[in-house]
Amino acid sequence: MDIELIRRLSIPAETKVVLCVLDGLGGLPGPRGRTELEEADTLHLDRMAEDASLGQTLPVGYGITPGSGPGHMALFGYDPLAYEVGRGALEATGIDFPLGPNDLAARGNLCTVDAEGRITDRRAGRVATDVTAELCERLSTIALPGVEVFVLPVREHRFVLVLRGEGLSDALTETDPQREGVPPLPAEATVPEAQRTADLVNEFVRQARALLADREQANHLMLRGWSTRPALPQLPELWKLRAAAVAVYPMYRGLARLVGMEILDAGDSLQTQMAAVEQCWDEYDFFFIHYKYADTGGEDGDFHRKRQAIADFDDHVPDVLKLKPNVVVVTGDHSTPSSMAAHSWHPVPLMIWGDHVRPDHVFRFSETECARGGLGTMPAKEVLPLAFAHARRLTKYGA
Amino acid sequence: MDIELIRRLSIPAETKVVLCVLDGLGGLPGPRGRTELEEADTLHLDRMAEDASLGQTLPVGYGITPGSGPGHMALFGYDPLAYEVGRGALEATGIDFPLGPNDLAARGNLCTVDAEGRITDRRAGRVATDVTAELCERLSTIALPGVEVFVLPVREHRFVLVLRGEGLSDALTETDPQREGVPPLPAEATVPEAQRTADLVNEFVRQARALLADREQANHLMLRGWSTRPALPQLPELWKLRAAAVAVYPMYRGLARLVGMEILDAGDSLQTQMAAVEQCWDEYDFFFIHYKYADTGGEDGDFHRKRQAIADFDDHVPDVLKLKPNVVVVTGDHSTPSSMAAHSWHPVPLMIWGDHVRPDHVFRFSETECARGGLGTMPAKEVLPLAFAHARRLTKYGA
Repeated sequence: MDIELIRRLSIPAETKVVLCVLDGLGGLPGPRGRTELEEADTLHLDRMAEDASLGQTLPVGYGITPGSGPGHMALFGYDPLAYEVGRGALEATGIDFPLGPNDLAARGNLCTVDAEGRITDRRAGRVATDVTAELCERLSTIALPGVEVFVLPVREHRFVLVLRGEGLSDALTETDPQREGVPPLPAEATVPEAQRTADLVNEFVRQARALLADREQANHLMLRGWSTRPALPQLPELWKLRAAAVAVYPMYRGLARLVGMEILDAGDSLQTQMAAVEQCWDEYDFFFIHYKYADTGGEDGDFHRKRQAIADFDDHVPDVLKLKPNVVVVTGDHSTPSSMAAHSWHPVPLMIWGDHVRPDHVFRFSETECARGGLGTMPAKEVLPLAFAHARRLTKYGA
Repeated sequence: MDIELIRRLSIPAETKVVLCVLDGLGGLPGPRGRTELEEADTLHLDRMAEDASLGQTLPVGYGITPGSGPGHMALFGYDPLAYEVGRGALEATGIDFPLGPNDLAARGNLCTVDAEGRITDRRAGRVATDVTAELCERLSTIALPGVEVFVLPVREHRFVLVLRGEGLSDALTETDPQREGVPPLPAEATVPEAQRTADLVNEFVRQARALLADREQANHLMLRGWSTRPALPQLPELWKLRAAAVAVYPMYRGLARLVGMEILDAGDSLQTQMAAVEQCWDEYDFFFIHYKYADTGGEDGDFHRKRQAIADFDDHVPDVLKLKPNVVVVTGDHSTPSSMAAHSWHPVPLMIWGDHVRPDHVFRFSETECARGGLGTMPAKEVLPLAFAHARRLTKYGA
């Protein structure tokens, strides 16, 4: 649904909607001809499926393998092709850095250069995270005119640079030459308005190089993925409700924060996540529950771990249902078949359960069954509008 | 998928994709309640279907009956509503004329006029093709300032005119008045920049009339469907691969050529087509195999001939599979139900077979089964992106 149409039709209501995202949920058949989800013990999900509408989502489009950013943007109701979260912004988001409207973020790599300044190792020997943390502190002392500077460690040689100030532009080239044997490139403005930003970045790099010059390894850096905070319509305002997120991994908290959800202290397990939802049940109308471990097992090519992760989620389904939500959505942000050990383009199982649901002839929550479900194959960005419709949070279009 | 997104996400890979187009594949039930495809003996296609993802395509849109041009543009991955191949260009393409970027093509009809120049027969009594060929040779002697003139026979009274030169425009009215009893119309420029082209065309018509004046029948001509070569992004460049077409009919070779495929010498039967694919297997990443006779039977309203044509194709399926392609697509460019003896708007059966395919609960390749397949009903223009995703030729969108 178009954002402006949502804004026009959305109305407040006394209903609760829960969106459960099993990251990387969709799979492919394993050795016994059934997928991870199909082999998992999912008693509670299957019981819900008996009364639910089932279908499958296309996260971005036919044949398109989504990253986590676009996968979640779609589930939050935004066209992931229209609202693109830049790599720098996503990386900042992924370490819980609250990006502001005047922030410009980049992904940084520490690298090693020789005496002539030529890159000899683009990853600085994958330097330890705590060394990177120490160097980031050193780099945070750099002062630039008119902007604040944040340098934050991510993992190994990776860090995030954020410049905060008026009028910064992301129309810059990357300083990473993508190969060794040459020096890092200067940042260049790709539009005239970005010249001041380019100058600031190059001054940052000059000072950084001086600060790191005493080191043999990790004595220089490269910057790429320039991006500002994406201008996303805020979900609570768009839908006229209070929205909360419970996520163990910072990336997903960050994505929820970008669309205006409040972040609950969710601990580090499904148990603590569910407890947080229960505790704040009266304070919000919409809860986004993110569960990472289906994806982790898939990414690692571990069929059984993915299957078990899904079964573990199933154990906590009653924790949601006992709160008497009006509508529960269960789906994934993309597929991660363990046979591919990667994200994939395959459609994702979808279930909408609760008030005013039209049941179909499909009674199990699985890839094969969802492909025959009453909801058909639908764009992921339409899932939230559909869920909110079931929660009577969308009024009639036209007289 | 948007063309620019394809350009951005496509990557080279060591995989082979085969697109089999059974022209006019989709049908409607015959006297025994089953379609041509359902009654055909399709042992090999059905065996593939057991492991495949099935669905159906919408070639252009709901209710829209496609011509061969849009039907194929969609299967080549182009939005047929955005990339229209003009009738003159299609007709030139259909006789294997290699249209260049400076070419302006029109469909021509020989017609018969009376002593006052009024049309008495718009089709010149469907004059024999070899007479038309002879007259085209005569008309090819016409000289115009600054342009080359090509006049080529098609069939019966139909021919193609191509003018080749800088700055020609297709913004012209047609000279065919669409009725008898009046003279052919002059070509008129519909924008000022087309005036020179209109003058050239009218001069061509004047000279042509003089050259044909000695004849009783086919003593004049009419021109319509002005079109230049459409500016189509070229498939090999877009997808970063080598693409080849094997087609017995010139129209389909021409359409493949318009999108940049190389045309293999494919002989005049499925046997010679398959031999050509096998011979060139190592030289290309993508093969388009066009099979005409399902459509021919349908167009002629001959249920049994269409059924038999489909069964004949099925016999050659092992010739494709023995080459060990990574992905095979089997579909049609549109439906041609023999009960309608014409193209129709009905969705077309679709099968995607090969690597990373998610099988569904559907085990036969037929209209009824494909309508329940795991791929759902999808736009035909998304088929190629989906096939190339399965062949790992699309990288991830977003981080």
